[in-house]
Parts: sequence; structure tokens; C-alpha cells
Amino acid sequence: MAVKAKIGVLGASGYTGGELVRILLRHPRADIVLLTAERSAGKAMRDVFQHFSPFALPQLVAIDGLDWANLALDVAFCALPHATTQKVIKELLAKSPTTKVVDLSADFRLADTVAYAKWYGHEHHAPDLQKEAVYGLTEIHRREIRNARLVANPGCYTSCAQLPLIPLLKNKAIELDEIVVDAKSGMTGAGRAAKESMLFSEVSEGFHAYGVGHHRHVAELDQEFSLAAEREVIVSFTPHLVPMNRGILSTIYVRGRRGRTPEDLHAILLKFYMKEPFVHVLPFGETPQTRHVRGSNMTFIGVAKDRIPGRAIVISALDNLVKGASGQAIQNMNLVMGWPETMGLEQVALFP
Amino acid sequence: MAVKAKIGVLGASGYTGGELVRILLRHPRADIVLLTAERSAGKAMRDVFQHFSPFALPQLVAIDGLDWANLALDVAFCALPHATTQKVIKELLAKSPTTKVVDLSADFRLADTVAYAKWYGHEHHAPDLQKEAVYGLTEIHRREIRNARLVANPGCYTSCAQLPLIPLLKNKAIELDEIVVDAKSGMTGAGRAAKESMLFSEVSEGFHAYGVGHHRHVAELDQEFSLAAEREVIVSFTPHLVPMNRGILSTIYVRGRRGRTPEDLHAILLKFYMKEPFVHVLPFGETPQTRHVRGSNMTFIGVAKDRIPGRAIVISALDNLVKGASGQAIQNMNLVMGWPETMGLEQVALFP
Amino acid sequence: MAVKAKIGVLGASGYTGGELVRILLRHPRADIVLLTAERSAGKAMRDVFQHFSPFALPQLVAIDGLDWANLALDVAFCALPHATTQKVIKELLAKSPTTKVVDLSADFRLADTVAYAKWYGHEHHAPDLQKEAVYGLTEIHRREIRNARLVANPGCYTSCAQLPLIPLLKNKAIELDEIVVDAKSGMTGAGRAAKESMLFSEVSEGFHAYGVGHHRHVAELDQEFSLAAEREVIVSFTPHLVPMNRGILSTIYVRGRRGRTPEDLHAILLKFYMKEPFVHVLPFGETPQTRHVRGSNMTFIGVAKDRIPGRAIVISALDNLVKGASGQAIQNMNLVMGWPETMGLEQVALFP
Amino acid sequence: MAVKAKIGVLGASGYTGGELVRILLRHPRADIVLLTAERSAGKAMRDVFQHFSPFALPQLVAIDGLDWANLALDVAFCALPHATTQKVIKELLAKSPTTKVVDLSADFRLADTVAYAKWYGHEHHAPDLQKEAVYGLTEIHRREIRNARLVANPGCYTSCAQLPLIPLLKNKAIELDEIVVDAKSGMTGAGRAAKESMLFSEVSEGFHAYGVGHHRHVAELDQEFSLAAEREVIVSFTPHLVPMNRGILSTIYVRGRRGRTPEDLHAILLKFYMKEPFVHVLPFGETPQTRHVRGSNMTFIGVAKDRIPGRAIVISALDNLVKGASGQAIQNMNLVMGWPETMGLEQVALFP
Repeated sequence: MAVKAKIGVLGASGYTGGELVRILLRHPRADIVLLTAERSAGKAMRDVFQHFSPFALPQLVAIDGLDWANLALDVAFCALPHATTQKVIKELLAKSPTTKVVDLSADFRLADTVAYAKWYGHEHHAPDLQKEAVYGLTEIHRREIRNARLVANPGCYTSCAQLPLIPLLKNKAIELDEIVVDAKSGMTGAGRAAKESMLFSEVSEGFHAYGVGHHRHVAELDQEFSLAAEREVIVSFTPHLVPMNRGILSTIYVRGRRGRTPEDLHAILLKFYMKEPFVHVLPFGETPQTRHVRGSNMTFIGVAKDRIPGRAIVISALDNLVKGASGQAIQNMNLVMGWPETMGLEQVALFP
Repeated sequence: MAVKAKIGVLGASGYTGGELVRILLRHPRADIVLLTAERSAGKAMRDVFQHFSPFALPQLVAIDGLDWANLALDVAFCALPHATTQKVIKELLAKSPTTKVVDLSADFRLADTVAYAKWYGHEHHAPDLQKEAVYGLTEIHRREIRNARLVANPGCYTSCAQLPLIPLLKNKAIELDEIVVDAKSGMTGAGRAAKESMLFSEVSEGFHAYGVGHHRHVAELDQEFSLAAEREVIVSFTPHLVPMNRGILSTIYVRGRRGRTPEDLHAILLKFYMKEPFVHVLPFGETPQTRHVRGSNMTFIGVAKDRIPGRAIVISALDNLVKGASGQAIQNMNLVMGWPETMGLEQVALFP
Repeated sequence: MAVKAKIGVLGASGYTGGELVRILLRHPRADIVLLTAERSAGKAMRDVFQHFSPFALPQLVAIDGLDWANLALDVAFCALPHATTQKVIKELLAKSPTTKVVDLSADFRLADTVAYAKWYGHEHHAPDLQKEAVYGLTEIHRREIRNARLVANPGCYTSCAQLPLIPLLKNKAIELDEIVVDAKSGMTGAGRAAKESMLFSEVSEGFHAYGVGHHRHVAELDQEFSLAAEREVIVSFTPHLVPMNRGILSTIYVRGRRGRTPEDLHAILLKFYMKEPFVHVLPFGETPQTRHVRGSNMTFIGVAKDRIPGRAIVISALDNLVKGASGQAIQNMNLVMGWPETMGLEQVALFP
Repeated sequence: MAVKAKIGVLGASGYTGGELVRILLRHPRADIVLLTAERSAGKAMRDVFQHFSPFALPQLVAIDGLDWANLALDVAFCALPHATTQKVIKELLAKSPTTKVVDLSADFRLADTVAYAKWYGHEHHAPDLQKEAVYGLTEIHRREIRNARLVANPGCYTSCAQLPLIPLLKNKAIELDEIVVDAKSGMTGAGRAAKESMLFSEVSEGFHAYGVGHHRHVAELDQEFSLAAEREVIVSFTPHLVPMNRGILSTIYVRGRRGRTPEDLHAILLKFYMKEPFVHVLPFGETPQTRHVRGSNMTFIGVAKDRIPGRAIVISALDNLVKGASGQAIQNMNLVMGWPETMGLEQVALFP
């Protein structure tokens, strides 16, 4: 058996942290040696996630005071709140420059530190590191990711919107000024912090939009869409909350450019993702359901005709905790470490 | 106490039928004298809906063989499947011409019988009655409804889309060629017939679109929107299923015409519905949740700025079984019978 | 129209507070003149409960500094956290001795202040008031409630267990030493405070017991069961959480005493509740569902044979926010005020 | 790589069939060569389960006309409806006597064919095969299973009740005449057949018991409990439905025999399952949640003190589709084939 890599999960008591641990426990090359959690420091992982009770895992510790040099992690996953992340990674890489970092926060996603400051309300704390950070939407930036030391794992909403749209933008196949992304997410996307608005009884048996017109994730979309289209693109984006745990579905309204039909758009996506293990384009006219990707690293994409001539409806679905966060992070780790890209990510979706 | 009216509910074993009974049981002027259900004929209402167990209600009977003349119903609610409805109402009104009918099916909603045949795949069975049928979106067609004998109660999806859009169309305030209606419904909208796709485990913990590009309800939208706009309007409409029982939320993407801002659109809606008891326009920027109208006859509407300049996001929410079906049917009965419009419909939403 | 009574709801921003307001808004004799909420003081009710947006309601205020004498409430509902309640009611009644109080907390439910101190970990702050407090399980203590100034409204779990068991205990119809109450509750029973364990994703798609062997509510059961049985009774009681908003179902395992059959137990319950408007005993062998009492003040009770000879299974269901809390509180207000007991509580259950 | 075994799944379009396929797709020794489904014969697996869309799988075929001899399956999983199973397996084994069969129906679970006829209302169609059938609760009958040709996989409810109770019965540690099993199951336990009572809106947002006093699964419990206790044991068993997809939780009320304390019972279970990979006994006083075993083959067991002296509450949780059905079936296949018992079953629970 190959020697295992030393892995740390910073922020292990939240949902993306727990999901990293779930996958890493069965990853053939991973040895979890560090789990951090600020408020739960000193507890066992089973105290914050009973489903890990049968497993031997390191005790949760606080980040402050860790000896990064001595730990000499091969890979550090960072599932920390926004803003503190930049400081932690800066220190970690200063002390242990050979550690590879996959960051699941938004802190290194925006190449433009001015845009970062505008959207997040404070200066970027590690502008030098930002220069080397690679945006980690694996299927689009695979080559750069392989050589990266610091990968900025994309957001869940934005992964779900980019995977179907970027090939269409790169092919200049759709009009750029009337793209509407109507996105719907399960509740784990909102994190594990105790907030009244996230209580079961506030969420169950109902549906609503939130952050209408001003959700932060659009900054990431603007950057990547403009890059793909080679001009500025601003899309309409509205997130909604679905009373379910996992899953994001994006219903995307587009108009074909220069006579491109919905069938043409479907063909572009089919070709683009033909060899991808984690993106599956359904037959034309079929549309996906979030439940059919649950627990897997898969993204399903469907294309159908709109009733308005010339327009198409593109629908994508993924599990926000897997392909939308921790699964893609491990996919990126596999690339960075030179392992097979699908290693540890073979789980078939759990339906129902 | 005023004399009560004799009320019949045809198709009482489905969800809209049960909801009619729930409201009628507490309506001061209603006396339920007839309940029909084909497959459950001979059973008590409590056998198909245990929540009615404490109440004295007529036994369920089959329609065939009913003596409409002798029954002499004051009001008949028709919650039957599509297509049979036209035949039943034709016979009912032939035998008992003074009965007022509120039909909850789609059978009399399309004024154009040719359009009907196209969308529903068979000839209209009562074209003469179609001429006198009045489309029952109460707030828009109140005057005609008062004098109608046959009211075609609107669909749930279409009520939810029309209430916010019609005032904007009548005011020529929005562009007509890029209206996108992204609609999400709870499961009771799909009825009570046993289908695999409606089983709990097929629906829970997931989200999906259906009928993408070709949902029948668009015919009704086309008719009413074109009427309001005074030219043909075709909107993009995509329905989705939410794992919840009740509620529809429509997220509507529009572009203001001739410089109308989102605030202008909000002002139009606020003014239009100022005195309406069942349509509530939220302060600008606030958006509604389906759970806040649950069990009530209320529609909530919100308007917010889109991030694309000149565009607005309009969101409406109602309970598909109340304002989207049985509540509006009773609102229409109240008008037809000359009773106060809100009678029996005063329930405050049940949250959570 | 009769003059309306001046009503205050202390603790209006929680679920039982909101439910009181929902019912009171349609109660013909109620005029809501005071709503308190400590952390939300200064806000409008619509800011904490959007479903009240269409209604004119008093602004939320803090309790501290209220002039009880001047307010001269006819009825005060107290939906405050445990412990502070005793102090607030003490002051209120000192300043405004003619106000009737219906307290929804546990603070006045235990007649024995020593037992109170043991279960709640602190001295009783109003032992004199405790003496006049009447335990408010309406169907059992109706006579005393009529003359009470201070009604201690029972808990939701305990109402659900007492209504089926007390008639059996009073009739000495069951063995006292092997009663098992396996109780299951919806999430609103846990309140609206933001706790990690109450987040949607911690609760949805799963089921568990909690407080096994040591739930506080048993003190209330001990008191009332011992009273009914005329000797000490200790039952086994295990609460569970169901991923639903409303409803409690108690599955109760009992053994008939002196040859009483399950049919005998059913007959006792049927006779005991024959004239009660809010307790409905189902035909023998039928068992209730929580969804069929949702939003109503009704309790459904069923009795079936156990497969172990001589034993019966008794199942009761109620809506924890209505008959289990706010509905019963208003039922008690009606008694205290001399109004018809069912006034304002006529809502038929909302199913689905 | 080792040669793969030829596997057939009979009844692949239901939930247990789908779950078998999900696990087998990642089992290192399994090659799925046959999938049957009567009503969906001719369809692709992706047409009945969209989540298998990315995988190459055999087309669904009908059983009638299959050439068992030629197919020469190494293992056949039988996930067919009751009653037809006996006939199908009889023919299969007559034509292909070396095939190993793991049957997930109830058809071979009762050793006593008279008891079978009583509970299932028809004669046993394969009494000779019944003699060789081995009851497949793996942890209890491991030795016999290794040598079996026909394994009768236990039911989901009964697995969940037996795993905690059998060690206590074998140790004569609990009283036999007052065992109460209050069981709660997710909806997939009810299968995928379209029934009104299983529709989302009939099940969501509510809770109820069913089959009170006469559920068929008790026959299996009677057999196994009597075997373990070496005398006849009849337990009280009440199943309930929880609005969730997966999971069973059994709350079991027992009285210690001859002074055994709850701690003693816990110690017995801890010792009994110390080396078992799929049964995890929690620390004393902790109780399990179904969500923490979701998607895994794990059973969690907890023991706590009851408040009635001498009594204990034992709670067990498993995923009805995995340890309660398809996972345990594959665990049994592993034994029968001489492979490592945990092969293909390593998935960590998916929480949330």
C-alpha cells in the first residue's frame, strides 16, 4: 500500500468539514491527522457528529498555537468562516511552505482584491497569496490546478451555474445580456451556525427567495463568466431555499446567439463534458432532479426548448456539500497530489 | 339567522374538494347538502378524510343518477377531473338552470374552444356554456363574476402569476417579450391520485422542474396576459415541485418599459391592490414566503431591484389550495350570491 | 356588538405567542392591546412574523416599565420562558388584581412548590400565587377554571397524555405500574430559540428520542395522574422529535385491570368525552394521525387491542400549538370570562 | 484483479432493488449481469432510476422465460413481492442448483410453514426449500449463513428490534412478558408501489401508527425471540410512519430480570457486539438517531435508565434500506461467497 498523505481539516465541526471527513475516511491515500474547531476544541469528533462515533479520529483542537512546521501537513483543507481564512492560510504557508491548501471559503476566489474588498467589506489580508491562488472549478481550470499550491474551491451556487454556462459562453453560443439564473438550494448550504431563520419550523413546509438582487456569490460569477465570454457579463441571479438538506438546482434561461437552437446548446454541452467523470449531460429534453445526485460528486445537466422561440432552458443539479464543496475539494486534492482524479469519489448517489 | 344556501361539492374526495368542505363547514351561509366521489361512493366523508370525523356531513354519492332538478342546489362547486366536467355541468344546468356553478377544473377557462381542443386533445363538450362562462380571477374580473351563472375558477399556478403581472401589463409598464415566470409549487397541486412520481420518497429531500417548455397552464396565461396587454403575450413559464404540501411561489423576471424602475412597478402594484382584502403588497425590497400565506386566502407580492439595470424581480406567493383553488372559488361564490366577499375566508395564515 | 376585552400577550415573538395572536385576531370578543417581546422590543409584529403583515397590531414592547394598573388588561396571556414568569405575574397581579392570567409556562403547574424547586432548580418566586393557581386541563378541571384568576395552562406533551389516561385512571380501569407513554412531537414544541440542534438540517430526514429517562414534563404527569388515581402513579415517558412542524402523538401501552378489555377502555373514553367539543374518540380499532388535527383545537383518541392478551394500545393526537398550548389557553380564557367555551376556536383542521 | 461473480437482481425497479444496484456497482467482486422488473421490462435502469443514468447496466427484463441454467448466476438477489418469490426461487434453483440466493422477501423467513400459511393467507409454495433456508440476521446466524445456499434476509423492522433484544434474551437478562417495541420507520420501508396513503401530501407534516396490534412482522419476531429465549415470547409491537425517506428507530421498554440494572443490560450489549463492524453500542445513556446511520450498513444501539426502577429503555437505529434490507443482503452474500464480510459496505453514513 502506498504511503498515506497527512491531511488536516480546519473547521471540522461544520457541514463541509464533516463532509470532508466522511469522504477522507474512505480515501485510500488520506490519513486524517488534524481536525480543528474553535468552539468545540477539546471535544471528540463524535461529540459534534454522532455518525463518526464508530471511527477513530483525532481530537478537535483550536488553530491558535498549532505548530504548522512540525505538523508538516501534505494537504490542508480550510473550511473556515470568511475573513479569518486569509490570515490562517498566510501563517500556515509561511511556516509550512510545502503544504498544499484547498480553501473552501470565498477568501481566495476573487482574483481582483479590490472587488474582494468591495463585496466583503474589508481589505484582503493576503494579497500576495491571492496572486498564486487558482480558482478550483475542476473541469474548467484543471491544468492550472495540477500545479497549484493554493486552490480556491468555488462556491456551491456558482459551481452549479458555471458548469452549464461556461461552455456556452466559451462557444459564444448565447446572448450575454439576458441570462437569468434562478437557483434553489437545500439548507446545508446555509451552514451549521444557530440562527432563528434556519430553524426547522422556519424552513419546513415553505419556500422563499432571499438576498434578492444582492447575493455575494455574483461576484464570483461575474469574474468567471466574463473570463469565459471575453467581455463583461452580468447575470440575473436569485437564490431560493428549499426545505431539503442537500442539493442545488439552477434553472437557467438563455437565448441562443446567431440562430443557435436549444438542440445546438445541448450538443455543445454534450461534447464539452463527454469524457468528464463527474458531469453528466442528460438526453435532450430531460431535466435533472437534485435527489439523483445526492451524496455523489456528480453534476447532472439538462437542456430543453423554451416555448419562446430561440430560447432554451438549461437546468443543472449537484449536491452542494459534495460537488458544490467537499467533493470538489477532494477532486482538487487528487489533482494537486497527482493521484487519479476520481479517487475516493466513486460513491453512487443515494436515492431515495 | 339568514337562511342558508344549499351547496353541493362535486368531487369531494380530492384535495380541492376537501378544502372546499373545510371552508364551507364554517361559512355562515353554507349548508352542505351534496358530496360526490365516484370511486368512494357509499363511503362517509370521514373515511376519505379522517379530519372530518367529528362533523356531520352527507354521505359520498356518485354523480350518475343524481336528480339535479330535485336537488335544486343554490351553488355547485365542481372539483372534477378535466373533460368530464363539461358534460356534468352541461347536464346539471340543463336540469337546474338556476344553480350557480363554480368550476375548479380547466374545462371552462379558455374562451377560445379551438385553443381548448388544441391543449386538451379533445373537442369542447359544451361550447354554448363556454360563451357564458366568466373567468374567475376575482380581483381582475369582479364585475363580470357578480352576474355570472358559471364561473371558471383559475388555476393555482396561473393565479399566482397573474395577480402580480396583470396590473403591470394593463399599465404597459413592462417589456412583453422577455417575461420569465419561474414557478414552484407544493405537492397538493398535483392532486390526490396515486402515482409513483408523487410518492413521499420520490418527492421528499429533492427538487426538480417538470413539464419544461410545455405545461398546459400556459394557455390560460396566454389568454389573460394578451387580454391585459391588448396584444399577444407569450411568457416563459417553468413549474417546479417543492417538497412541501401547500404553497406556490412565482419568481418573475421583468424589464421596465420606457424607463419604469422597479420602484415604479412596486408603486403600480401597491396602488392597484390597495383596497383588496386578499392581496397584500409588501414594502419595496421585501419578498414573500409561501409559509406565511398557508391556509389563508391571501396572496403576498414583493418587488425588488434586479442587479441588471432596468430589470425587476417580482415575487408572489399564495396557498394553492386556498387562493389558488377552493378559497377563490368561495370568494367567487360570495360574489355570485351577493354576500360579503370575505365571508368564511377570514382565516389568518397558519405559521409555522 | 359586545364590548371587547383588552388582551395582552406577553412573549408574543415565540411560536405560542404567535399562535395566540393568530387565534385572537379572529376572536369576536378579543381586542389585542399589548404585545411584548424582550429582544424584539420596538419592532412591529410583522417584523418577527411576516404572516401578520396585513394586520394592524400593537408594536412589540419590553415588559419592564409597563404600567399594569393603567393598562388594566382584562386578560393577560403569559408565553414567557420558565422562571421569569413567576416574577412577572406576581407584579402584574399586584398592580392589576382584576386581570385574569392564563400562563403557558410551567411556572404554576406544580401545586407542590418543593417539587417545583426540585425539577426546575430554583425556589418558587410566587408561592402565594401558586395556592390560587388552577391547573388548566380544561376538560378535567373545568369547574375550578371558571372561577380562577390564574390558570396554569398544561404542557403540550402532558395534555396529550392526560386526556386519554385520566378517564381510565379515574375509573380504576388500568394497572398503574406498567404504563408506558411513548410520545412524538413536532418541532414547534421545542420553541423558537436559535439552537444548533433545532436547525433544519439537524432535524429533517431523521428521528430520535431525547431526554430519555429524565424529561421535566413528567413532574406534571405524576401530579395529575396521582390525583386521578388517588395514589402515586409513575409512568414511563419517552419524548421523540418528528421532522414536522406541528403535532404530538402519544402511543400509550396499558394493561386492563380486573378483566377490563380494550373494548371496555374504549367505552370509558367514549362516554367520558361524549359531549366534549374538542375531544373526539374514534371508533374502536381506528387510530389517529397528527395531521388530522393540525391547526385545530381538537384531540383525537383511538383505542386498539394489543396482541398481548389483556393489554391495549391507546393513541392520542393533538396540535401542540393549539390544544397543546394557545388554543387551550383561549379555551380557558373563554371559561374565565364567561364566554362560550368554543368561541374563536372553531377552525377545522388544515389537511393536508 | 479477482474474477468477478455474476450477479442477478430480481425486482430491480423497487427501492430495495435500486439499493442493491447502488451498492453492487461499487462492490469489487460483483458483476451485475441481470436485472428484472415485470412492469418495466424493456426499459433501461435509468428510466426507472435517473440516478443510474451515468452507469452502464443491463436492460430490465421480465423473469418469465429466463434461462436460469444458461445464465448460471453466482448470486441471485430476490427483491420480489411476497408469494411469487417462492415459485421463482424454486424454479431458479431447480434449473441452476449452484446459484446462491439471498431473498429479501418474507417468503422464507418463517421456518414453520404452518405459521407462514396463517400469517400470509396461502400455502407455502416451496416447503422443501424452506428446510434449507437460513434466517439471515448476520450477527446472530453467521455460522449457518456461511454454508447456506438460500438465505432469508430479515425484515427491516425485525432486524432493528432483534439486534438489541436477542443478546438480552440469550442472557436471560430481561423479563419476557412485558417487552414493548415502539417502532418508527421512514417511508421507503413501505415500498414504491403507487398508493394514495403513500403520497407526499398524505405523509408529510404528520405522524401516525398503523397496523396497530396486527402487523405481520411479529411472526418473525416471535420465531427469533422464542429461539433466543428458549421459550415462547410474545412482544408488543407498534409500527409508526415518520415523514422521512430512510431509517428505523425502535424504542424498546424492558424490565431487568433478577436485579439486572440498565447498566448491566448495556454491558451485555457492549460485550456482545464488541467486534462487530456493523453494530455500534453507544456509551451508556446516549441514544441514537436514524440520520446518523443513513446510507450506511451500521446499526446504533443505546441504553438508558427508565424512571421506573428496574426498567430500561433500549433504542436502536438503522437504515431500513441498508442494514434493514440490501446492505445486510450483501453482507450475507459476502459470507456465502467466502469474501470479507465488509466488502462493498464501507460507506460512512451520509449526514445531513
